Amino acid sequence: MSLLLETLEKIQPLNEEMMQTAKERVDFLLKPVGSLGTLEEIAVQLAGITGEMYPDISKKAMLVFAADHGVFEEGVAAAPQEVTDLMAQMIIAGKSGVAALSKQAGADIFVCDVGMVSDLPPNSKILDKKIRKATSNMRKGPAMSREEAVQSLEIGIDMAQRAINNGYTILGTGEVGISNTTASAAIIAALSGVDPGELTGAGANLSEEKMIVKAQVIRDALTLNKPDKTDALDVLAKVGGFEIGAMAGAMLAGAANHIPVLIDGFISTAAAAIAIGIDPKVKGYLICSHASAEKGAAYASEFIGAKPFLNMGMRLGEGSGAAIAFNIVEAALFMNREMATYGDVGLGVV
Amino acid sequence: MSLLLETLEKIQPLNEEMMQTAKERVDFLLKPVGSLGTLEEIAVQLAGITGEMYPDISKKAMLVFAADHGVFEEGVAAAPQEVTDLMAQMIIAGKSGVAALSKQAGADIFVCDVGMVSDLPPNSKILDKKIRKATSNMRKGPAMSREEAVQSLEIGIDMAQRAINNGYTILGTGEVGISNTTASAAIIAALSGVDPGELTGAGANLSEEKMIVKAQVIRDALTLNKPDKTDALDVLAKVGGFEIGAMAGAMLAGAANHIPVLIDGFISTAAAAIAIGIDPKVKGYLICSHASAEKGAAYASEFIGAKPFLNMGMRLGEGSGAAIAFNIVEAALFMNREMATYGDVGLGVV
Repeated sequence: MSLLLETLEKIQPLNEEMMQTAKERVDFLLKPVGSLGTLEEIAVQLAGITGEMYPDISKKAMLVFAADHGVFEEGVAAAPQEVTDLMAQMIIAGKSGVAALSKQAGADIFVCDVGMVSDLPPNSKILDKKIRKATSNMRKGPAMSREEAVQSLEIGIDMAQRAINNGYTILGTGEVGISNTTASAAIIAALSGVDPGELTGAGANLSEEKMIVKAQVIRDALTLNKPDKTDALDVLAKVGGFEIGAMAGAMLAGAANHIPVLIDGFISTAAAAIAIGIDPKVKGYLICSHASAEKGAAYASEFIGAKPFLNMGMRLGEGSGAAIAFNIVEAALFMNREMATYGDVGLGVV
Repeated sequence: MSLLLETLEKIQPLNEEMMQTAKERVDFLLKPVGSLGTLEEIAVQLAGITGEMYPDISKKAMLVFAADHGVFEEGVAAAPQEVTDLMAQMIIAGKSGVAALSKQAGADIFVCDVGMVSDLPPNSKILDKKIRKATSNMRKGPAMSREEAVQSLEIGIDMAQRAINNGYTILGTGEVGISNTTASAAIIAALSGVDPGELTGAGANLSEEKMIVKAQVIRDALTLNKPDKTDALDVLAKVGGFEIGAMAGAMLAGAANHIPVLIDGFISTAAAAIAIGIDPKVKGYLICSHASAEKGAAYASEFIGAKPFLNMGMRLGEGSGAAIAFNIVEAALFMNREMATYGDVGLGVV
C-alpha cells in the first residue's frame, strides 16, 4: 500500500472523551470560566490530539519545504527566482526569519528541497527530495501531474514521520518558494470559488500593477485547467506547488500520529485546505497561529475555519508565525498543568 | 526630593538616534521590508528604550500588585473580596494563571500587597507595602487621598527599582484586586470623557444586570468626585486603586531606567493611562501585549495609542497577557540579532 493511503488509514477523529475531561479541568482551573480564551481552546485541543491531559510538546520541529514555480515566468513575483535557493540556504544556516524565531522558541529546523530550480551543493544539510526543477507554468497547463502531487504529499509525510520517529512531539510547517502566494491564491480560489482578485496580495512587496497581472494569471490558470473543487488532489496538481503538497503531507502525517501541527500564514493555510480537502479529520490536528497581512490570508483562514490569534501584521512566510506560536501552544499546556483548581482551594467556580 | 520626583526627573525621551540605526538594520534584514510587522516595531522600540541594538532582555520580572477596593460594597464584582488575598497567595505559590504563564516565559514573579483587606501571614513571600485595607468607596468620596496616590506610585517605583537593581532587564505588570475593572473603567472614563457604560464589562463573569449597576456606580463616582482629567494624579486618587497606582509607578521606574515594561490588559492599560498622564514620555517605554476581551479594553488601548497584538480573547488579568508577551518581545530581539542582512548576501533590498 502506498505511504499516502497508509497514512490516511491511520487518521482518527480527535479523542472526544479526553477533550471532555480536559474541558472539565480547564473550566475548573482557578480563573473565571473562559477567561483565558484561546489558551483554553488549545489546551482542550491538545488533549484531543494526543489523548493526554499534559502532552509533552517540548520537542519542537519546524519543517520547511522549498520549491520553485513555473508560473514565475508570468511576472507574478517581486523577487528573482534565485531567492528560493538563497533563502533555503539561509534558513538551514540559521540566518533567516523563521530560523531566528525558531531559535527563540527552542525549535529545531529541517529544510527539504522538493523542487527548487537550483542544484543543492554537495554535503548540503538540506534534504534532497527534488521532484523536478519547479512546477510547470499553470497558465499553460497543470502545474504537475497527479502522480507528482501524490509524490509531494508523500515527501511531506516522510519528513514529518522521520521527525516524529526521532522524538519530536509538535511540528511547525514552513516554506520558501518564489511565486507561491500565486499558487496559494489559486488553490483557495479553486476550492472556494472566490475570484482571485480578492485573494491576490503583495507577496514580497509586489507593485499594484503586477498584482492585477497576478490575479489575471490565476484566473487564466483556473479557466484552462478546470481544477475539480471536490478533489483536493486535483487542485494541488493543477494549480498548487511541490512545497505546498509537502506541507499538506506533513499535516496528514501529524494527524496520523496524534501530533499537533502548527499552520503558519497564507501558504501554509492553502496547504491546510488541501490536507483538509483530502481528509476533513485533519483539521482537528492543526493549530493556526498568526493572521498574515497577505491579502488572501484572512479569507483563507475563514475558509478552513481557523481563528488566528497573533495579530502582528506579519507576511514573511517561511513558517515565521508558526515559530512564534510554539510559545503560545506551550503556554496553553503550562496553564493547564501548573494552575490550581477551584477544588484545590475549596471554592465554587466563578 | 521625593522618590516620585526623583524618578520623573530621570525620564528621558527614547533614543531617536539608536532607533534610526535599528530601523535601518531592520529594513536591511533579509526579508521584504515590513514583512515582520510588529516584531520590527518592537525591535526598533527596544533600541530606543535601551540605547542598544541587541539589549539583554533575558532577565524577566513580572511585578504583581494586590489591593482591595472600597467600591466593592456597591455590588460591582462577581467574586467575593477574599479572592484578592487567595489569588495573591496562589500567584506567589506558582499556581495561578500569571504564574503558569510566567514560568513558561522564564519570568520570575514578585507580588506586593499595596492594600489588601486581609492580613498577610507571617513570613509571607508577598512583600508587605499595605497603604491601608482597601481604598474608600468612590461612590461616597475619593478612593484615596492625593498623598496616598503618591504613596501607591512610589511603592511601584520601589518594587521596579529593586528588580532592576537585582539585574532584571524587562518588566511585566500584573495585578489582583476584586473590583478593579470598576476602578479601571472609572479612570478611562475620567480621562477620556467616554460614558462608563461604554467601558463596563463582565469582569470575572458579572451578570448583565450587575453590569448596569456597575456603570451607574462609576457615573455617580465621577459626578461626586469630579476628577480633573488634566491631572492624572487627581484621577488616580479619586477613582483609582492602590494596585493601579503601583503599576503606574512601576512603569515610571521602567522609563526612568531605560527598561521596557509590558502592559497587560484593561487594568494595566488604565495604569498606563495614569503613568502617561503624569509624563507622556513614559509611553515609549511601554509595550502592549494582548487585546483583552474585557469590554473597555479596546477603547482603553486606543486611548493610550497602543496596538495590542495578541488576539486571544483573554480577560483574566493578573498580568497573564504580559507574561505571554515576554516571548514575543524576545522574538523581536532574536529576529534583529540572528538574521542576516541583504548586505551579508550581496543582494539589493526587496
